Amino acid sequence: MIEKERVYVEPRITLLGAGPGDPDLISVKGVKALKTADVVIYDALVDEALLEYVPKGAPRVYVGNPSGDENFSQATVNQLMVDYAMNFGHVVRLKGGDLFVFGRGYEELDFAASYSVKTTIIPGISSAISVPGLQSIPVTHKGESDSLWILSGTDSRGHFNPELLDAARSKATVVVLLAYEYLHEITTLYKGLGKGRLPAAVIQNGSMKNEKVALGLVNTIEEVAEEVGIDSTGPVLLVFGQTVALHPEFGYISRFLNRKVYD
Amino acid sequence: MIEKERVYVEPRITLLGAGPGDPDLISVKGVKALKTADVVIYDALVDEALLEYVPKGAPRVYVGNPSGDENFSQATVNQLMVDYAMNFGHVVRLKGGDLFVFGRGYEELDFAASYSVKTTIIPGISSAISVPGLQSIPVTHKGESDSLWILSGTDSRGHFNPELLDAARSKATVVVLLAYEYLHEITTLYKGLGKGRLPAAVIQNGSMKNEKVALGLVNTIEEVAEEVGIDSTGPVLLVFGQTVALHPEFGYISRFLNRKVYD
Repeated sequence: MIEKERVYVEPRITLLGAGPGDPDLISVKGVKALKTADVVIYDALVDEALLEYVPKGAPRVYVGNPSGDENFSQATVNQLMVDYAMNFGHVVRLKGGDLFVFGRGYEELDFAASYSVKTTIIPGISSAISVPGLQSIPVTHKGESDSLWILSGTDSRGHFNPELLDAARSKATVVVLLAYEYLHEITTLYKGLGKGRLPAAVIQNGSMKNEKVALGLVNTIEEVAEEVGIDSTGPVLLVFGQTVALHPEFGYISRFLNRKVYD
Repeated sequence: MIEKERVYVEPRITLLGAGPGDPDLISVKGVKALKTADVVIYDALVDEALLEYVPKGAPRVYVGNPSGDENFSQATVNQLMVDYAMNFGHVVRLKGGDLFVFGRGYEELDFAASYSVKTTIIPGISSAISVPGLQSIPVTHKGESDSLWILSGTDSRGHFNPELLDAARSKATVVVLLAYEYLHEITTLYKGLGKGRLPAAVIQNGSMKNEKVALGLVNTIEEVAEEVGIDSTGPVLLVFGQTVALHPEFGYISRFLNRKVYD
């Protein structure tokens, strides 16, 4: 009788940030990890062009949008990640943006550690900084902004993030992720603080071909975002601060808007 | 008589963020830019391994540490960048970290625009997010931190950044760059707010082989940083917030420190 050969695999996981959207914004280290993947687990924010780096035959597992898709809860993703590592070897968990800016990367790291699966961290370019930057909006700029406050629209319990009021009061450039549905509430906060004329931007699908950008003032940005056709499909990011006015088209657009809104 | 041939070059500039230090953390897009560089202008925070991507014969221009080195002011760097573009073609301005997180990238972009030199932006992985992340310290984490405030130690005039007091008061994870010399002043702020037991980290040369990490509490972090041998050579980053306690060695170290400091 011939015993069936048992192939031993060494389970390991790489948590990999894919960057803001453009597949060429992944790191060289990230590409090296993908090329040695036995399985890749990827979510809705990842450009599928990145899967071309993965060896032929290696399973590609799509897990939707973990923060919004009921079919793939974070617990499911965690379990899939460990199960695949146990059975296949090197699992690359490819996530849109960075791992730790509202990316729930620590939950995955912690879960893998609870099974003693060795995990490597490869950070990605965070959309919070790069998406404004690619639009020539610097999140900090000498003489205009000495700090950057990055927030999510909701707190851990899914409620409107109360820190947004403190952020609106501060002198920081404020970047809000996962918050397009709260744009009205947030501009209302700023208006209540007498900051209706602060420059603001809304950017959808940053760094990608279908990017949409709305530039205006707190008083006008909701209207501009609607005119530009921004909706809640794909990632949307809000920016509030003086440095938004450094965008090359800001002068023209804000003059136009001022006329429209105030005259 | 033979007229000397005049070679026409099309001046253009790529502003390129190299990432936190590890040369493999540059983006694929960044490597493509380096491979087509006619000149590269790089500063002290950049790993010279990245210069291997640059074509042979293309000048490599070192400009020190623009924020600290008197020999290379920002004005000098701006002018070099444009002059080389006019005479050689494609200049890659390779900068440590990201371009716009205290990177003065907008000043370079603006200067190039004033000469009508076409400029491409390629963001880098910001050390403010990735250096804690590589140490398993997530800058945000469900239930512990819903925001991240990134500040420089000094404001635009070179004074202690007054926003640091607001940041210390907030619930945000606070990351401070360019601030090791202010560690005592910053911990004093936190202590004055009754936050002496807040977890804190100091990381020098993040993502590089000579990385040093100090973990502790606001009350103890100055002493730990000194014990670990952190000094002001190379980039140093400060982190204040509950998520620092998620570092795998935090429990052990903070227990040790509590005994030492309070018994």
